[in-house]
Amino acid sequence: MASKLIAVVAGVGPGTGAAVVRKFAATYPVVLLARTPDSFSQLADEINGNGGKALGIPTDVSDAKSVKSAFSKIESEFGKDFGLAAAIFNASGGFVRKPFLELTEEEFVSSWNVSAKGAFLFSQATLPYLLKATSSSKHPPTIIFTGATASIKGSAQMSSFATGKWALRSLSQSLAREFGPQGVHVSHAIIDGVIDIPRTKEWLKDAGPDAKISPEGIADSYWHLHTQPKTTFTWEIDIRPGVEKW
Amino acid sequence: MASKLIAVVAGVGPGTGAAVVRKFAATYPVVLLARTPDSFSQLADEINGNGGKALGIPTDVSDAKSVKSAFSKIESEFGKDFGLAAAIFNASGGFVRKPFLELTEEEFVSSWNVSAKGAFLFSQATLPYLLKATSSSKHPPTIIFTGATASIKGSAQMSSFATGKWALRSLSQSLAREFGPQGVHVSHAIIDGVIDIPRTKEWLKDAGPDAKISPEGIADSYWHLHTQPKTTFTWEIDIRPGVEKW
Amino acid sequence: MASKLIAVVAGVGPGTGAAVVRKFAATYPVVLLARTPDSFSQLADEINGNGGKALGIPTDVSDAKSVKSAFSKIESEFGKDFGLAAAIFNASGGFVRKPFLELTEEEFVSSWNVSAKGAFLFSQATLPYLLKATSSSKHPPTIIFTGATASIKGSAQMSSFATGKWALRSLSQSLAREFGPQGVHVSHAIIDGVIDIPRTKEWLKDAGPDAKISPEGIADSYWHLHTQPKTTFTWEIDIRPGVEKW
Amino acid sequence: MASKLIAVVAGVGPGTGAAVVRKFAATYPVVLLARTPDSFSQLADEINGNGGKALGIPTDVSDAKSVKSAFSKIESEFGKDFGLAAAIFNASGGFVRKPFLELTEEEFVSSWNVSAKGAFLFSQATLPYLLKATSSSKHPPTIIFTGATASIKGSAQMSSFATGKWALRSLSQSLAREFGPQGVHVSHAIIDGVIDIPRTKEWLKDAGPDAKISPEGIADSYWHLHTQPKTTFTWEIDIRPGVEKW
Repeated sequence: MASKLIAVVAGVGPGTGAAVVRKFAATYPVVLLARTPDSFSQLADEINGNGGKALGIPTDVSDAKSVKSAFSKIESEFGKDFGLAAAIFNASGGFVRKPFLELTEEEFVSSWNVSAKGAFLFSQATLPYLLKATSSSKHPPTIIFTGATASIKGSAQMSSFATGKWALRSLSQSLAREFGPQGVHVSHAIIDGVIDIPRTKEWLKDAGPDAKISPEGIADSYWHLHTQPKTTFTWEIDIRPGVEKW
Repeated sequence: MASKLIAVVAGVGPGTGAAVVRKFAATYPVVLLARTPDSFSQLADEINGNGGKALGIPTDVSDAKSVKSAFSKIESEFGKDFGLAAAIFNASGGFVRKPFLELTEEEFVSSWNVSAKGAFLFSQATLPYLLKATSSSKHPPTIIFTGATASIKGSAQMSSFATGKWALRSLSQSLAREFGPQGVHVSHAIIDGVIDIPRTKEWLKDAGPDAKISPEGIADSYWHLHTQPKTTFTWEIDIRPGVEKW
Repeated sequence: MASKLIAVVAGVGPGTGAAVVRKFAATYPVVLLARTPDSFSQLADEINGNGGKALGIPTDVSDAKSVKSAFSKIESEFGKDFGLAAAIFNASGGFVRKPFLELTEEEFVSSWNVSAKGAFLFSQATLPYLLKATSSSKHPPTIIFTGATASIKGSAQMSSFATGKWALRSLSQSLAREFGPQGVHVSHAIIDGVIDIPRTKEWLKDAGPDAKISPEGIADSYWHLHTQPKTTFTWEIDIRPGVEKW
Repeated sequence: MASKLIAVVAGVGPGTGAAVVRKFAATYPVVLLARTPDSFSQLADEINGNGGKALGIPTDVSDAKSVKSAFSKIESEFGKDFGLAAAIFNASGGFVRKPFLELTEEEFVSSWNVSAKGAFLFSQATLPYLLKATSSSKHPPTIIFTGATASIKGSAQMSSFATGKWALRSLSQSLAREFGPQGVHVSHAIIDGVIDIPRTKEWLKDAGPDAKISPEGIADSYWHLHTQPKTTFTWEIDIRPGVEKW
């Protein structure tokens, strides 16, 4: 039994990652993983300054050593008997859109490296701590994977991003079938639209004020998934603006 | 603009329907539709006795006149300028499992009559009131359709139930695409497992205490769908026990 | 054991139906079902004049009596011990595209009446003859249902057509699971595009010479499905022009 | 314009690969790719001895250099202006079924290396020759990818194999959307069952004589896909024994 419950979020950036961190930090100490401290330092300070607890660790989720090192640091900070109430995988490989015959092997592999191998490494690192938390966590320990439109559609010129996202979706389904019966809730979210972050400020300006997905809305849904009881697990939800064409 | 916001639930019975009614009755006056008063009388009394407001109306959702009559009664009770914050379609046609060549035309049609035609009539009756509530409802007005395993799988000897449920799913997707841009949230839930109600008490006894879906869990998820903002609509979720094979 | 093998095609018109009739008439006597003789008379004459055998019977597939009467006429013509090598269901209910709140109950029901109830009646009428042919037919007796884009997509304002087509797809899957093990091949084809027929002559003119689906191409694929052995059944294929966006 | 049309099959073994080679060798010279000559030598001899033309080249499709070298050898044999009438990708990464937490990174990656990266390299190598053949090939140049049950289902303990196969399916869909409009037919086949090969001789013995998929049946369907005209392309078919549960 885990004596202390925490949450970990991989792929912390200005959008979904940050909103999810803030949402879960209201209840749990949260570990923030991103490749560079720039992605999480300010957010960690904000949470620690507001009476929450946040620990940022620079991590490359596609690298087994880096993931292992991150979890050593988590153990150093929280002790060996912590458990994970929640693990959110929000990292994505490079988004490339170009004619297939111009795609380099490196570009093709880059998406999979994060979306699939990264998710594999993250899952192997977190599942033992999620399993350890099944008896002590109020809500079933939960691992959530962030997908995209490309998780269910292989568009022209998008094979790099889509192959990674389809693989991620498949991984999450396989894990749901294996770990659901063991008390861990495995979910996959299809985020089908443009997320409202600084980088997309100028996008979809003509589509009205509600054309972009609110990161806070995504975080609320992730939290809802986390609170579902063992008898009522959702594997997959889709999330899109009401005005979206799909 | 609607001056009064209410909720309506079609297909009130001892499981999902009752749990959804209780959940939404904490916020809205709720109208309960079922073919016979036996299905809703006790529940309506319970809610009215607890300081809530419930109105039961015997209704056959597969009959246009009956549906029209129900909404006349709602107008008599709540006035002509009410709006719907939520409309839940939880009715199902007869569940028949038998060799295809033994199925009667009446049996085949019975599922569709409720699941598809009933959902059509319910949607046409509720959507004008949902649209009227878009400017005054705190949460986007929401219509939710209850599906089943048979919504995405046509099993052997199950063509009657499955054709109705597939049609319902299709209807909900078509409505989501038409009314999402108008501010109404349309959702579909795939309830993939046995629901824990008195009738199923003896079922799945060997599968452990968490093998059946909690109606309250379903109601919590429906309420979450209702609270999603316009930028973050979920069209479809699946819900099943963690131990379920799928 | 059936002493004589024939094929029956429901929904004979100028496109897919006629091409399928011609293809199967090269091997089997073919029965042509359509609501009015106008739809099949010329085609039946053509086949009978070319050394083939065709029998047209005016039939409303959504009416049980009409379907029963058609099979009585088939028995009168071919004798009681005929078997069906192939049964093709190519009928469709009315295609209506309009705002959901303007749809009449009659319009909503019309699609289902043909696509789902019609397919149910056709399947119940043909399956006994298909089963009877399993021991004598060179190719496994085959029943094929014609679907459309709307079989897998519920577009805005298309709920009537889509609910019927989703129901049809579900029916075909359920039948495949029940009758495949009994030696009958059940298939469903998603025809995803505009079919090249006189009525669509002016459509897609700017999209090039190959933008519309060739009915003969569909018929060739249906014939291929028919020739698949018992170990190698295809339940579903999609068919679309190479230039189609999807 | 290509002056000579050939076919290439990657993943030649005793089942689907060999049957596909024999089928296409009746019309085209065929190049056989497999990691070791053991997999293709006897088959190549058989074809060359029967008046056909076969060239086996030991190739690791997951290695860019190996694939490049294979196509240099093809150019040496057939000249620089050959075109591909058909390219069949039938290779698969290691099939591993074990508890997720026991899976090594190497095992997880091994499936993707062949199923996704291998398919990427094969597609990049073959598409220029397929495009070159569009004006001279009688049938639209065709690239077919062999999938499996795991292409659409992420089963418990199957994440390695499934992630590779989902990625492959996604790649094929993306390529169909990009190259269909350019005249190349891209298809994906879901082979849903046990294939009847020497290695599976003892499997499913109680399920009857038709419980395993005939490789020749698969090859016939691949050939049918190849013969579909530009107006009538199938992206995906499923293939399973009639008795299969699914």
